Amino acid sequence: MKHFTREDLDNLQRRKRANLINSITGYKPANLIGSVSEKGNTNLAIFSSCVHLGANPPLIGFILRPVGEVPRHTYENIIENGFYTINHIHKFFIENAHFTAAKFDQEISEFDSCGLTEEFIEDFKAPFVKESKIKMGVKYVDEMLIKQNGTILVIGEIQHIILPEEYIKENGNIDLNLAEDVAITGLDTYHEVKEITSFPYAKPKNTPKF
Amino acid sequence: MKHFTREDLDNLQRRKRANLINSITGYKPANLIGSVSEKGNTNLAIFSSCVHLGANPPLIGFILRPVGEVPRHTYENIIENGFYTINHIHKFFIENAHFTAAKFDQEISEFDSCGLTEEFIEDFKAPFVKESKIKMGVKYVDEMLIKQNGTILVIGEIQHIILPEEYIKENGNIDLNLAEDVAITGLDTYHEVKEITSFPYAKPKNTPKF
Repeated sequence: MKHFTREDLDNLQRRKRANLINSITGYKPANLIGSVSEKGNTNLAIFSSCVHLGANPPLIGFILRPVGEVPRHTYENIIENGFYTINHIHKFFIENAHFTAAKFDQEISEFDSCGLTEEFIEDFKAPFVKESKIKMGVKYVDEMLIKQNGTILVIGEIQHIILPEEYIKENGNIDLNLAEDVAITGLDTYHEVKEITSFPYAKPKNTPKF
Repeated sequence: MKHFTREDLDNLQRRKRANLINSITGYKPANLIGSVSEKGNTNLAIFSSCVHLGANPPLIGFILRPVGEVPRHTYENIIENGFYTINHIHKFFIENAHFTAAKFDQEISEFDSCGLTEEFIEDFKAPFVKESKIKMGVKYVDEMLIKQNGTILVIGEIQHIILPEEYIKENGNIDLNLAEDVAITGLDTYHEVKEITSFPYAKPKNTPKF
């Protein structure tokens, strides 16, 4: 067994530490966040940090690296106009999605440079990804600065959910296998996913005796 | 296509909405959080909300449902002694892990009732899961109240990482396929995961022309 203490982690080579700590939480969701500046420049960026915050109201969070450390077009756009989209990444366009992480100049849209298609619905301000089959329109509601490292938890309220009706199971769960959604580990590795099983709602009285 | 507006979401039956919104972020990591009260009662609970916050210092977050809504033994223990463990869930014990979500009385340890084994290392206060091959000892550093719904982001600093050396790839990534880690959707569905591919660090100049 390998045992890293806090000191060992601090002494790791920077990139190796980043990869290790980026894989230590487990499998991560794969999403593209779409946004647009006031001038109309669209932006698209991959995020593996989307997290469920609550169902009523429907709240979703994601983690942004420190503003100032790298250009944060997504953040600037969200602050400018208050809306963004979250689009699931499917197996057939993982390469396109991965390269949205490159540091393009602000006037270059990742939609164009990465071969993905903008889609606007009704009067919603931010661009969706046409290739994505499961997508959300989200309204910025708050942010929390994590002072220990300068990252930000961005909190949004879901305004729209768009997906094929056949992905929705009887109980409300979404069949992400059917959508060929992928999972991410670390910063660069993509996985396909296959359901094993589901269990009933856990109560002391239906807990199996192990 | 099915299009839910915010109003449609509000009007959904409660359980169906919970399932839908709990699956809309994509695949989620599967972890067990171990803790112990000052009196020595151990606790173990499944969480699908662990999220990477940063590598230097090594910070990890997870989301807790509102304190007061349901008993929050994990939270009380973490506040009492300041330490907890995060243990990956593998395919061979998903049923044991799932049922830790049942609302057991505080004096009943989920380790016993769900057939998992406590393991203590050195002088670290909180119990690890012996069956888990990838585990962390974590120190509580902060929490942030999400005022929109009363959930809490708990922020911890990784003190220990323990895993078999052969899971660590040359570049520092962890091979979660080899560990047979599972991914979660919604509140009850477990998945196995298989690597498709990885891509180089994304730069504008190595972005393929799509």
